Amino acid sequence: MGSLTTNETSTLIASDRVEGTAVRRRNGDSLGRIERLMIEKRSGRVAYAVMSFGGFLGIGETYFTVPWSALTFNPELDAYEIDVTDDQIRNAPQRSAEGHDPSSDRAWEEHVHRYYNAHPYWTV
Amino acid sequence: MGSLTTNETSTLIASDRVEGTAVRRRNGDSLGRIERLMIEKRSGRVAYAVMSFGGFLGIGETYFTVPWSALTFNPELDAYEIDVTDDQIRNAPQRSAEGHDPSSDRAWEEHVHRYYNAHPYWTV
Repeated sequence: MGSLTTNETSTLIASDRVEGTAVRRRNGDSLGRIERLMIEKRSGRVAYAVMSFGGFLGIGETYFTVPWSALTFNPELDAYEIDVTDDQIRNAPQRSAEGHDPSSDRAWEEHVHRYYNAHPYWTV
Repeated sequence: MGSLTTNETSTLIASDRVEGTAVRRRNGDSLGRIERLMIEKRSGRVAYAVMSFGGFLGIGETYFTVPWSALTFNPELDAYEIDVTDDQIRNAPQRSAEGHDPSSDRAWEEHVHRYYNAHPYWTV
């Protein structure tokens, strides 16, 4: 009989293992955590992570849509790593409170991927 | 400021929206629910869903690793749909309790995908 003990293997990671995981800079600075993943229904690819930057830089608890390809898991930090400056965070494209759909606006998606210097998920 | 209100759009779905969602046959028969997704780290593709078949067919609460491509979301049922017979469920390849890693055994992965007549995620 199966169990739910394996939330990570050498090549696979569980969605509920990613949710809640810390996000840091390479030097260990805490930036926030991953709240959820946004998955492209058609292809089954993870397109975005919704991240909280909790109170960082005095901007309050805020959520941002970050391209999944901009995040790298660092086992030593037990955190996802992202290479962003304070200014990049302050000016980061924000996920709107009105239920804005990133995938309905390809120009917005291109902007977000350029912003994080991330490889677009739709060209893989 | 962003919020966490959008857990589904026309083309994207949130990981925490998928977790816990019912799985049914096309005719509506309840089979169980999705517990978590297993994501290929390198590519960001969803490879498997870990499903519970809760008490179905008297086999107790059991977890199975099902290829993601074998599941189709049906908005009318508000459930993922999978085309399996009772016998297929009884004899389905089981995720072991000992932390067996599907992705470390390609022959096992091929077997599981053939079992559910599903397109292998590594050939997309």
